[in-house]
Amino acid sequence: MMVFESADLTAASFSAALFGLVATSILLLLGTAWVGQRWKVTVTLCACAAVVGAGAMFEGREAWTTGSVPILYHYAGWIISMPLQVLALYFFANAAGRQRIGLFWRLVVAAVLMVFVRYLGEAQLMHAALAFLIGLAFWLYILGELFFGRMDTAVRESDHDAIRRGYFWLRLIVMVGWAIYPLGNFIMSFGSFIDGGGISVTYNVADFLNRMTFGVAVLATAIMATRHSQAQAAGDNEEQRS
Amino acid sequence: MMVFESADLTAASFSAALFGLVATSILLLLGTAWVGQRWKVTVTLCACAAVVGAGAMFEGREAWTTGSVPILYHYAGWIISMPLQVLALYFFANAAGRQRIGLFWRLVVAAVLMVFVRYLGEAQLMHAALAFLIGLAFWLYILGELFFGRMDTAVRESDHDAIRRGYFWLRLIVMVGWAIYPLGNFIMSFGSFIDGGGISVTYNVADFLNRMTFGVAVLATAIMATRHSQAQAAGDNEEQRS
Amino acid sequence: MMVFESADLTAASFSAALFGLVATSILLLLGTAWVGQRWKVTVTLCACAAVVGAGAMFEGREAWTTGSVPILYHYAGWIISMPLQVLALYFFANAAGRQRIGLFWRLVVAAVLMVFVRYLGEAQLMHAALAFLIGLAFWLYILGELFFGRMDTAVRESDHDAIRRGYFWLRLIVMVGWAIYPLGNFIMSFGSFIDGGGISVTYNVADFLNRMTFGVAVLATAIMATRHSQAQAAGDNEEQRS
Amino acid sequence: MMVFESADLTAASFSAALFGLVATSILLLLGTAWVGQRWKVTVTLCACAAVVGAGAMFEGREAWTTGSVPILYHYAGWIISMPLQVLALYFFANAAGRQRIGLFWRLVVAAVLMVFVRYLGEAQLMHAALAFLIGLAFWLYILGELFFGRMDTAVRESDHDAIRRGYFWLRLIVMVGWAIYPLGNFIMSFGSFIDGGGISVTYNVADFLNRMTFGVAVLATAIMATRHSQAQAAGDNEEQRS
Amino acid sequence: MMVFESADLTAASFSAALFGLVATSILLLLGTAWVGQRWKVTVTLCACAAVVGAGAMFEGREAWTTGSVPILYHYAGWIISMPLQVLALYFFANAAGRQRIGLFWRLVVAAVLMVFVRYLGEAQLMHAALAFLIGLAFWLYILGELFFGRMDTAVRESDHDAIRRGYFWLRLIVMVGWAIYPLGNFIMSFGSFIDGGGISVTYNVADFLNRMTFGVAVLATAIMATRHSQAQAAGDNEEQRS
Repeated sequence: MMVFESADLTAASFSAALFGLVATSILLLLGTAWVGQRWKVTVTLCACAAVVGAGAMFEGREAWTTGSVPILYHYAGWIISMPLQVLALYFFANAAGRQRIGLFWRLVVAAVLMVFVRYLGEAQLMHAALAFLIGLAFWLYILGELFFGRMDTAVRESDHDAIRRGYFWLRLIVMVGWAIYPLGNFIMSFGSFIDGGGISVTYNVADFLNRMTFGVAVLATAIMATRHSQAQAAGDNEEQRS
Repeated sequence: MMVFESADLTAASFSAALFGLVATSILLLLGTAWVGQRWKVTVTLCACAAVVGAGAMFEGREAWTTGSVPILYHYAGWIISMPLQVLALYFFANAAGRQRIGLFWRLVVAAVLMVFVRYLGEAQLMHAALAFLIGLAFWLYILGELFFGRMDTAVRESDHDAIRRGYFWLRLIVMVGWAIYPLGNFIMSFGSFIDGGGISVTYNVADFLNRMTFGVAVLATAIMATRHSQAQAAGDNEEQRS
Repeated sequence: MMVFESADLTAASFSAALFGLVATSILLLLGTAWVGQRWKVTVTLCACAAVVGAGAMFEGREAWTTGSVPILYHYAGWIISMPLQVLALYFFANAAGRQRIGLFWRLVVAAVLMVFVRYLGEAQLMHAALAFLIGLAFWLYILGELFFGRMDTAVRESDHDAIRRGYFWLRLIVMVGWAIYPLGNFIMSFGSFIDGGGISVTYNVADFLNRMTFGVAVLATAIMATRHSQAQAAGDNEEQRS
Repeated sequence: MMVFESADLTAASFSAALFGLVATSILLLLGTAWVGQRWKVTVTLCACAAVVGAGAMFEGREAWTTGSVPILYHYAGWIISMPLQVLALYFFANAAGRQRIGLFWRLVVAAVLMVFVRYLGEAQLMHAALAFLIGLAFWLYILGELFFGRMDTAVRESDHDAIRRGYFWLRLIVMVGWAIYPLGNFIMSFGSFIDGGGISVTYNVADFLNRMTFGVAVLATAIMATRHSQAQAAGDNEEQRS
Repeated sequence: MMVFESADLTAASFSAALFGLVATSILLLLGTAWVGQRWKVTVTLCACAAVVGAGAMFEGREAWTTGSVPILYHYAGWIISMPLQVLALYFFANAAGRQRIGLFWRLVVAAVLMVFVRYLGEAQLMHAALAFLIGLAFWLYILGELFFGRMDTAVRESDHDAIRRGYFWLRLIVMVGWAIYPLGNFIMSFGSFIDGGGISVTYNVADFLNRMTFGVAVLATAIMATRHSQAQAAGDNEEQRS
């Protein structure tokens, strides 16, 4: 068995992010039982993203015992967990106000291709600069839907303040937190192709924070919105009776 | 420990399909709690197929570290998960309108033999061309039952639109998505017997998509039908009271 | 890592039976939530038998990488899962009509000794012919209780048809399906002591079918009987009100 | 990978006890959902003891592949699972009639020290004869509390017969079943310090039986007492209405 | 496979703490179902801390087979589980009386930085004495919030005695039990950087006790407070009706 050294910051970031994502997974999986029917899918998708993230962390750490983490290990997790988080946003907005099914498919395809094209670029299976630009375009498309599309309208017209605030934070994570990925993509594509450790530390911290804060924000919003609906339903009942 | 290289597309497809099937399993396993009593078995069978698929992916990936994936690793998963999916369709139709128990047994036997005969052919334990034809016949029989049998009638007479739409998509997956398996069987039987990577990539993507879309379609239909039944029951109660 | 070859039927049977038992375990574990209070223990015992079977399959497959599976690996699973299934039958009959606690203990002891004596015989820790005969006697005793004992009476007087039909099939599995074990015991005891593969294939298929059909039959009966009881209870309530 | 031989009784006992404890764990974990609120902690503690026992079995079996099982592997499990079972008895009596919190702490400390002192003696970190005697004294103290303390009074005054009978059996297991541990401690302390296999077989069978019968007795009592309480509550409701 | 020797106290402490934390995790995870809505998050956070602790124990024990445990293995667990426990205290106080969201963030940041700075110091990535002092300051800040902040006020004004007593014990654990960590930090920073075994034993016992007693205290308080609320709600209902 290989033992990591005390001062190996990359190993430390893999271990800490792994434990953090395991804790996030447990919280979100249990959390699906605390929220109302229309929030269950959203919270479950976030939980799946956390579980997948934990799995990718585990594999990446194993690879690190050999001294480098091929970018394959990062992308295998992202290609599943990123579309899951984008879909969580779709179902989040859907809970606020019915969304078209066409948007669902556009978001899935955009999120999957965004990650896949970046991978092709970094693995030198495609022209690096082209891949970077296409990946960027897909990310901007997703951001566009979040900021100017029908999802934004539905959330703004939502009857509950917690949903509006939750959507604000989730959108921020997708904009600011996800910016690390095209950035890393840019650096990797036009530099070396095997990561010496520093990039992995950044990715691990970002992966953990993006999945954890995203999931916790969704869960908190869902719990508050569920309580609000229940209080409203109780109020309606009261009224009907009297 | 063996580490996959960054540009190893086969390893990437194994990892991504594994994570995707784990996420599908979690979604479907939790989903069994969100649907009405008569949909629980259907959703559970899809969840089992996803779990088995994830297990087979995991084992196949381990085998890939040696540079080739004997077809044994694909067939061990298929012989369990394909009959499970065919049975999920039976229980799906059964929820729409009571099906005969005899059909249940015919479908089980046809689905198991379809996979088993193909395996015998590819492993050269049986004449390859004969095995291919018999496997094809079983698949066509299952398609026949789906399109022209009593299941189709029951679904068409169903009281809920979501069931009809769901059945349409599920049937399409079994027809179009499953076409990859006899095709791969044909190529493998009349070409080399050990897969150099390309076939595995195709199988992994197909396995993931077939199990995921199938499971998600079943879950979505079950949730909508459950809501419909509850709304109807609530309406009936209302009527009875007044 | 050792990779099994494509035409290795024994490895294929281990893998397929493992996946099949995992799927059975999931179905039965989830199924405990779908049945009434008095069926829960019965279904849980079948689920435990499936989990133990899956565990034994997993270990046996590992052993097979070395080229032979010592009978120890089969018996370690059987000595737990067979008594569990016999007890599932006891609780099945108990749900139909209260059984004596003495029968419970006699069945446990008979089932455990049946497997243990066979193991002693095959491992040459006891005279093989004697062990075979004693093992046979215990099996016949269990069959006797099932066919002519108080369990049969209780089931025949049961108020629900599904229970009678379920008991018929379960008894058949214990009689016909379990016949493979004394047969294998006979062949192994008077032939070689290390299995070259053929015996393991037979055992794996039998183990999977016996645990799966048994569990599914119990679950199906329990679901039908639960629905029947609920319908009856609803009918009684109706009557009481009017 | 090391494969155990067919006639290796120690390996067989490790495997069988492992499977048995896994089955017990599943039964008890599911069982926590079938019992009333005041029995849940008791059943959970028994389930935890079974899970810990299964974990210790698994590790001991791994160690056995090298030909001997250092006593460390037994004691690591016992120091957690024995206090858990003693506490299960405390909460069992607590369900019959409120117990003092001081007794809780005395029992925890006595049970932990009983196991720890025995370990110190066997590992030659303490004078063997002294450790044996102190370990014995702690066991006798626990037995004293069970037979002549306030727990016995509370159970004897309990309103339900099942509780009295359950307590009788649980006390018997702690007296007769647990007698194997000081006995083994005596033999190991004054003989060799590494176990050649025979002691492990005895320990494995005893560990499995003690955890399994204990857990099943608690679960059976809890189910019966829960039903009794529900029937009583229903009766009270009936009375109140009329 | 490496087997630990009988007298290896460090290995014994790793194994025992691992089993103890697994048992704690199971108890707390099941416990989330026994408490009222507003206690669920608190109990879940404690369960997550126990799971993470078990994971870190498992990894540390693996590392110990090589003869030393780099401090990395301790800190990877602490950086997740300590903030989780501090947050559990926040939600504990929040259940007693609404807390500001700003306090939440201050506590998270203080707890994460406390562990991270200590790690940097011990791994010689930062001046050891400075890191020790900063780590100490963050711990004192958390203690200050617990003893003199708004959380203390909210708990003291709480309507239920169990909450006040629970908070007293939890605060004590964070003050007395956590004192081992700056102490160990001090010893490690100004002595050798690789642990010969003695420090790990102390850490393992402390980790187990801190997580177990903390979790059990939270669960016990939550169960009592839930019962209190239910009794009160039932009383209110009674009053309203009459």
